[in-house]
Amino acid sequence: MRILVVGAAGTIGKEIVRELGGNHSIIRAGRNGADVSVDITSEDSIREMYKKIGKVDAVVNASGGANFTAVSELTPELNEKGIESKLKGQINLVLLGMEYVNDGGSFTLTTGVMMDDPIPLGASAAMANGGVKAFVKASSIEMPRGIRINSVSPNIVQESWEKLGKFFAGFDPVPAGRVARAFVKSVDGMQTGNNYEVY
Amino acid sequence: MRILVVGAAGTIGKEIVRELGGNHSIIRAGRNGADVSVDITSEDSIREMYKKIGKVDAVVNASGGANFTAVSELTPELNEKGIESKLKGQINLVLLGMEYVNDGGSFTLTTGVMMDDPIPLGASAAMANGGVKAFVKASSIEMPRGIRINSVSPNIVQESWEKLGKFFAGFDPVPAGRVARAFVKSVDGMQTGNNYEVY
Repeated sequence: MRILVVGAAGTIGKEIVRELGGNHSIIRAGRNGADVSVDITSEDSIREMYKKIGKVDAVVNASGGANFTAVSELTPELNEKGIESKLKGQINLVLLGMEYVNDGGSFTLTTGVMMDDPIPLGASAAMANGGVKAFVKASSIEMPRGIRINSVSPNIVQESWEKLGKFFAGFDPVPAGRVARAFVKSVDGMQTGNNYEVY
Repeated sequence: MRILVVGAAGTIGKEIVRELGGNHSIIRAGRNGADVSVDITSEDSIREMYKKIGKVDAVVNASGGANFTAVSELTPELNEKGIESKLKGQINLVLLGMEYVNDGGSFTLTTGVMMDDPIPLGASAAMANGGVKAFVKASSIEMPRGIRINSVSPNIVQESWEKLGKFFAGFDPVPAGRVARAFVKSVDGMQTGNNYEVY
């Protein structure tokens, strides 16, 4: 398969490339993507990326951010990063990429554990994650041409524990490689509408 | 209690006003609100509403829309209504209203059944619902001054069945009054971070 991985240089993205790269041809995308550059907060940038790469069998996204802010200090403006990047960025990869995905192909997006097991400062990220999860489930029933769609919800990963562990008190971090295998399940498997929880 | 009900003239809003009105003082808001007007897609309009009404004990929202479109025809532009109205509109009622809610008060937002039981054309609305549900759960753990936050997820209501039933094949519609009672549970009860499913 020809697979686009957006966020290919990230902590989880690198593992996804490693896991899928053995059996598939990978196009690595990101802000400074090794193969193609994309800013998922820009519809034009997404359109341009798809035009450059042409048809693919799978689109995998491991990128997207949100501000981590206490809800009493969260403003509509600070909430906008989660809206534009983690939520709309991911959904626009689907809406604008539909015509570039071959029959029977797939989309796999990224959510995250804080929507199910809330952490301080995590409300904006949780909002984006919950929106993506619900979109995946709802859109899966009417995707055209046998195209599937899933999301992967990673726990905090061991590789980010030193930097981010303070926000995840008591969490049991998982290796990024285990998260990557859920992406393999989505791409190489047959399920659709699922949010794979890697907790 | 002094309670702001946004969307007070809607099918569910009217029942909320009826259920809560017996024991509480209600401020009815909406696009052409009986007591105060607000467009929840405008931060300025929300700010102006709160300035006009001053402190309240509870904010209840029964408004917010999204486009109903097949996912293969859904564009970023068509998806924007759900983002601006049902998702950001509701969340901004919380973020901008925080300082107007008295200690121990509450917010109650509206989600909807299609995030849990997907229907054709429902992906954009489901996205907004899922975002609101996750925001409610995540923000509830760090709301200041004992303020609670919940959402109510209504099934299709009997009062809308004639107009909207064709989108909800096989669903068992519920009376709007039953949905309204979940809002009472949120406002007069003690729970927080909950999404009351009225299915």
